[in-house]
Amino acid sequence: MSADPVRTALSVPLRALLDRFAAGDLTALARIISIVENGRAGFETLLDALHFRLGRAHRIGITGPPGAGKSTLTAGLIRRYREQGLSVGAVAVDPTSPFTGGALLGDRIRMNDVALDPGVFIRSMATRGALGGLALATKEVADVLDAFGFDKVIIETVGVGQSELDIAAAADTTVVVLVPESGDSIQAMKAGLMEAADLFVVNKADRPGADRLARELSLMLHLRLGQGLKNIPAHHGVDLRQARPGPDTAAPAPRPEPPQAAGWDIPVLETGAETGAGLPELAETIAVHERWLERSGQRRQRRQQRLAERVREQVARRLQLLTWRDSGGAAMLERSLPALEAGEVSPYEVAARIVRAVLPE
Amino acid sequence: MSADPVRTALSVPLRALLDRFAAGDLTALARIISIVENGRAGFETLLDALHFRLGRAHRIGITGPPGAGKSTLTAGLIRRYREQGLSVGAVAVDPTSPFTGGALLGDRIRMNDVALDPGVFIRSMATRGALGGLALATKEVADVLDAFGFDKVIIETVGVGQSELDIAAAADTTVVVLVPESGDSIQAMKAGLMEAADLFVVNKADRPGADRLARELSLMLHLRLGQGLKNIPAHHGVDLRQARPGPDTAAPAPRPEPPQAAGWDIPVLETGAETGAGLPELAETIAVHERWLERSGQRRQRRQQRLAERVREQVARRLQLLTWRDSGGAAMLERSLPALEAGEVSPYEVAARIVRAVLPE
Repeated sequence: MSADPVRTALSVPLRALLDRFAAGDLTALARIISIVENGRAGFETLLDALHFRLGRAHRIGITGPPGAGKSTLTAGLIRRYREQGLSVGAVAVDPTSPFTGGALLGDRIRMNDVALDPGVFIRSMATRGALGGLALATKEVADVLDAFGFDKVIIETVGVGQSELDIAAAADTTVVVLVPESGDSIQAMKAGLMEAADLFVVNKADRPGADRLARELSLMLHLRLGQGLKNIPAHHGVDLRQARPGPDTAAPAPRPEPPQAAGWDIPVLETGAETGAGLPELAETIAVHERWLERSGQRRQRRQQRLAERVREQVARRLQLLTWRDSGGAAMLERSLPALEAGEVSPYEVAARIVRAVLPE
Repeated sequence: MSADPVRTALSVPLRALLDRFAAGDLTALARIISIVENGRAGFETLLDALHFRLGRAHRIGITGPPGAGKSTLTAGLIRRYREQGLSVGAVAVDPTSPFTGGALLGDRIRMNDVALDPGVFIRSMATRGALGGLALATKEVADVLDAFGFDKVIIETVGVGQSELDIAAAADTTVVVLVPESGDSIQAMKAGLMEAADLFVVNKADRPGADRLARELSLMLHLRLGQGLKNIPAHHGVDLRQARPGPDTAAPAPRPEPPQAAGWDIPVLETGAETGAGLPELAETIAVHERWLERSGQRRQRRQQRLAERVREQVARRLQLLTWRDSGGAAMLERSLPALEAGEVSPYEVAARIVRAVLPE
C-alpha cells in the first residue's frame, strides 16, 4: 500500500491516522471527519486517498421539514439495522446557530440509546462556513463513513431548501418525511420535495390528517405522469388507528404502471417513529429499493452522477480558494468597496477585474 | 447618458430596451427580468448598466416554512402599500418542479386582486438552472425591480433551507413568518431562521398554539443574549381571540435592553393574513425598522455587505462559465468518467487537472 502514489503525498501523521482508520479505529474516524468537515490542511489528500475504498455502503438520505420527526426516525432505523447485525454511520446537518445548542441536545438525547454502540457512529455537522459549503462537506463526511466500512450511511438533513434537498438527493435512497402538520401536500411539492423522494414517509401517522396526506401524496405521484386518477399506486401504509378501509387500504389492485420511467413505484409509508410503528416496513422498503437500484442499473448511474458532481464542486472550491486566498482577490475587493458604495463602479465590473487578475490572458 | 462607457457596450436593441425601462415601461421591465433570470446574452451588461439606479427601494424579505401563509401575507402587504400610494415590485422563489403548476396557480389566484394594478409588479422565479444559481438570479431580479423605481421590493422565499434564507436575509428588512403548526420554536431555530429575522410574524394567529409560539419566540430572542428570563421583550401581538391578558399582552413593561447589540429589539407580531388582522401593525413595524436602519447606519452596512457578496457571487459565476463552457472542462470531465467509475482516479485528482487546464501557471 505504501507504493500508492497518492498516499505518499500524505504527511507522516496523516498516513499514521489513515492506517488506524483502515484498522477500524473509531477515534481515527472522528479525527478524519473533523479534518474533512473543517477543511483543515491535507483534507483533499485524505479524501483522495479514501476514494478507492468507497462504494460499499448503501446511502440513505432522510429529509423533510423541521419537526417531522426525522431524528427519531433515524434513531429507529439505526436500531433496526443493529438488530440485523448491520453497522451504521450517520451524519446530520444542523446549520450553525447561536441557538442550536438546545436543538442539538434534543437530538442527542433521542439518539442516546444508540450512541454507546461501537457499530454506530453519529456526527452532527455544524460548520456553516465549510470550504465549498456545508452541502459539499456533508457529502464528503458521508464518503468518509462509507470508506470506513459502515454497511449503512444515513444522511439526515432539514429538507425544504434546495441545498439541503440536494444533500439528501445525493444518497442512493432518499426518504422524504412529512407529518400531517407539514402543510398541504401542494406546498410540499412546491418546495421541490417531490423530485427528491424515492419513498415518502408520513410520520406521526396517528394524528388527524395522516391518511389524507398519504392519499394526496399517492395521487400526486400519479398525476405527475399525467396518468389521470384511475391508477392510484399501492399504498403501503400501516394504519395505526385501524380506520375503516378506504381506497388506499383496500385489497391490492392490479399494479399500475409505475410512475417513474425508470421503473420504481414511489411508495408512501405511514410510521409512528415515537412508538416504532411502521419502522420494520420502512427498513424493508428501503431494502427493496436498494435491490431495485442494483438490478435496474440505477445504483451505477447515481454513483456516476455523484462522481461528476463531486468533480464540479471540487473545481469550484479550488477556484474560490485560488481567487480569494491565493490571488489577491480579497484585497482587490477590499480596495474597490468605496467606489462600489459611491456607485462609481458596479459589482460586475469589479468581478470582471478580479477574474482577469486570477486568469491572466 | 449615451457617453456612459458601460452603456455603450450594450447592443442597440438592449439600449432601446433600457431606454423604455428608464421611461417606466412595464413590458420592458418584464423583458429585462427574463433576460436576467435566464442569464441570456447581455444580462451582465444590463445589470452593470442598471447598477447606478439602485438603492432607492426598501427591500423586504418574507420567508418561512411552506404553508405559513407567506403569499397571502405578501398580497396583504402589497395592498397596504398601494393604499399609501407606494409602488411595489415583488419576486417569489418557486423552485422548478414538474408539480409547481398547481402551487403557482394557487399563489397567483391569491395575488390576483393586486395583479391588474400598474403600481404592482409580481414575478415568480422558476428557473432552478439559473447561471450562478437561483439565489443569485433572485437577488438580481430584486435589483432590476429596485432600479425600475419601485418604492418597496418584496422578496418572498420558502425559507427553511440555507440558500433560501440567504436570499431573504439579503433584504433590508427580513420578516420570518411562522404558524402554530410550524413545529416548536426550537425546530425553527435549528433551521437557522432565528439569525435571519429582523422581525417575526406568527401568522394564522387565531389557531391554537399561536400565543404560545409567540411567547416562546420572545423568550428565545432573549435567551440568545443570555439575559435570562426577566426581560421579556415587548410583545406587539394582536390577540385575535381576545384572550385573557397574559405576560405578553400586559401593559408595556419598561423596555428591556434590546436583544441585538446593534440596537434593534426584534419584535414578534401576530397576524391573520387571510382576514387582514395585524397587517397594519406589520406594515408599521417594517416602517419603524426601515427608519432604524437609516438612523443606525445599518442600511449602509447591509448595502455594503450586499455589494461585496455580489462581487464574490459574480466572480464564482464567471469562473464556472470559463471552466465549463469556455475552457474545455466539460470535455475533460467527460473523458475522465470511465476512470473515475473504475476507481482508477479520484474526483480530487480530476478536479486538480481541470483547474490546472483553466489556470495555466
